[in-house]
Amino acid sequence: MKNGWRLHAQLADDTHPLASFALCELRLMDDANYPWLVLVPRIADAVELIDLDAAQRHALTDEIDRASRALREVFRPDKLNVAALGNLVPQLHVHAIARFRDDPAWPRPVWGTAAARRYSEEALIERVARLQTALRAL
Amino acid sequence: MKNGWRLHAQLADDTHPLASFALCELRLMDDANYPWLVLVPRIADAVELIDLDAAQRHALTDEIDRASRALREVFRPDKLNVAALGNLVPQLHVHAIARFRDDPAWPRPVWGTAAARRYSEEALIERVARLQTALRAL
Repeated sequence: MKNGWRLHAQLADDTHPLASFALCELRLMDDANYPWLVLVPRIADAVELIDLDAAQRHALTDEIDRASRALREVFRPDKLNVAALGNLVPQLHVHAIARFRDDPAWPRPVWGTAAARRYSEEALIERVARLQTALRAL
Repeated sequence: MKNGWRLHAQLADDTHPLASFALCELRLMDDANYPWLVLVPRIADAVELIDLDAAQRHALTDEIDRASRALREVFRPDKLNVAALGNLVPQLHVHAIARFRDDPAWPRPVWGTAAARRYSEEALIERVARLQTALRAL
């Protein structure tokens, strides 16, 4: 929690912790419709990608790469979607989502399409474990 | 056009050239609803961000930063949206979009909401010129 950074309450509600990278907290979105990760740089008051300096944005893209490779390894998706939007939650965060041609939103982006479907406790534990194993093996 | 790279026909149809960066072609989306840039790395067969090596993804994020700063300089948006989706056009490309609270899609993402509104020739020339001036000044 350096520099007074705190995870935004909405992100804390919607996601579960997966890993702490050098720059970002890696979280799992609590929506069983899609394997959906969120990276949140621990930089107080960062809103836009352009709020990062060069070293920070290189670190962020390296961590997006790592998270995306874990998604590919575990889920073998048809496509990866990576996005920094933040129209609703102002704290800078980056989505990395494994997409499938038969998922509820395909080929549209996931935001604002299907209502979130929360994981069961059992499914959540299993998904977190698989992703953490894949992250450690990268 | 090194390595046999060619701009995808759909991107060629939908966008206009703005600048050639070291890695990417920077293009303006022909949709007057939003100031909307597209960066296309000149890497043959790249589909996902994870198809890039570390040097390429650092260069890409530096060029996204530059394009985003030009958007901010010219348009003073309420929010920037940056995304690599590619569910419809497989060639790797990154969107950088200036968003406003009164734009046709706010707060949703822009894809699949309002139908594209093509620029008039006059408006297109003016917009390209303003962006190119801002890019040169960065």
